[in-house]
Amino acid sequence: MIILGLDPGLATLGYGIIEKDERGNCRAVDCGVVLTPKEEGLPVRLAMLEQGVNRILDKYNPDEVAVEELFFSKNITTGIAVAHARGVALLTCVKRCGRLFEYTPMQIKQALTGYGRADKKQIQACVTSLLKLKTVPKPDDAADALGVALCHAFTSRFGELFAVGNMTRTKGKNADKASVAIIAEAERRRKGE
Amino acid sequence: MIILGLDPGLATLGYGIIEKDERGNCRAVDCGVVLTPKEEGLPVRLAMLEQGVNRILDKYNPDEVAVEELFFSKNITTGIAVAHARGVALLTCVKRCGRLFEYTPMQIKQALTGYGRADKKQIQACVTSLLKLKTVPKPDDAADALGVALCHAFTSRFGELFAVGNMTRTKGKNADKASVAIIAEAERRRKGE
Repeated sequence: MIILGLDPGLATLGYGIIEKDERGNCRAVDCGVVLTPKEEGLPVRLAMLEQGVNRILDKYNPDEVAVEELFFSKNITTGIAVAHARGVALLTCVKRCGRLFEYTPMQIKQALTGYGRADKKQIQACVTSLLKLKTVPKPDDAADALGVALCHAFTSRFGELFAVGNMTRTKGKNADKASVAIIAEAERRRKGE
Repeated sequence: MIILGLDPGLATLGYGIIEKDERGNCRAVDCGVVLTPKEEGLPVRLAMLEQGVNRILDKYNPDEVAVEELFFSKNITTGIAVAHARGVALLTCVKRCGRLFEYTPMQIKQALTGYGRADKKQIQACVTSLLKLKTVPKPDDAADALGVALCHAFTSRFGELFAVGNMTRTKGKNADKASVAIIAEAERRRKGE
């Protein structure tokens, strides 16, 4: 199973691709960032992000996508920019894959290190060691995105039971007709039908 | 000239279409809202918003799009949801129209009433009277969106000079190659080439 992890941002969007085998072993396939220049206006930067995410989806056709949940306590302006970018990332992914999941920074830290308040360096060391890489993936956003993908790989075994972080499941009994059609179309595209 | 005004939101996105003639007179063409059910997950709701905005673009093919700038002091959770939705609205529009503009709530109030702190009722009364409508447009988000479109119609005469609120103009001298291609493609689509 191919899992895409995303760490959304407007200037820098990190992505990480891992492959999980039937026994749950994970290996890194690719990671990197999509960059947008700050000289361009917001709508154009969002269109660049969409193009970047579509290139990743084209290349790896992930079975599931895991996205970091937006959590900020510091800079509200940055948070708003990230939310614009995250909206575009979620939209782009849900048109190509019907299985999206989200995890809070704390869930990711907990899943990787067993400690919900681990710092950035500890997370990067865990990502490097869990994926048996020779060096820490660069830049930071790419390493973070691999961390999101690994978090999903580890917790999704139980996630289905508790519906943890499943972003494409209707709350309540009855799914909207349009919603069913959107997910069905995404799965058709993923399966190449 | 056809102007689309947008008042972005996740549960309710308001839109207003006006036509401006050479002398600057404006008439209302249509207004309404795109709704998304709160039972659906965020990515699916964003896809519904994209579909709704695309239907409006298909029907009216606006020459220019004006979007309310995100401004919130109250609820940060609502602000984040709106920013996700606004990112999707901007992305959807910039793929179909290369001329996007944004205005703060204060600029909109100032342009319509001459007073930057006018309340919602005053704005709605001005929209109704300026567009010579018999009743106040409903719901509120649709009336607000007509207000955004009117604000753009009034201020865009000077806006070009001062580059006020132009969201698709590169800051600094050199536009990114990708940015030029995105805007050129949007304009080709708008002109039906």
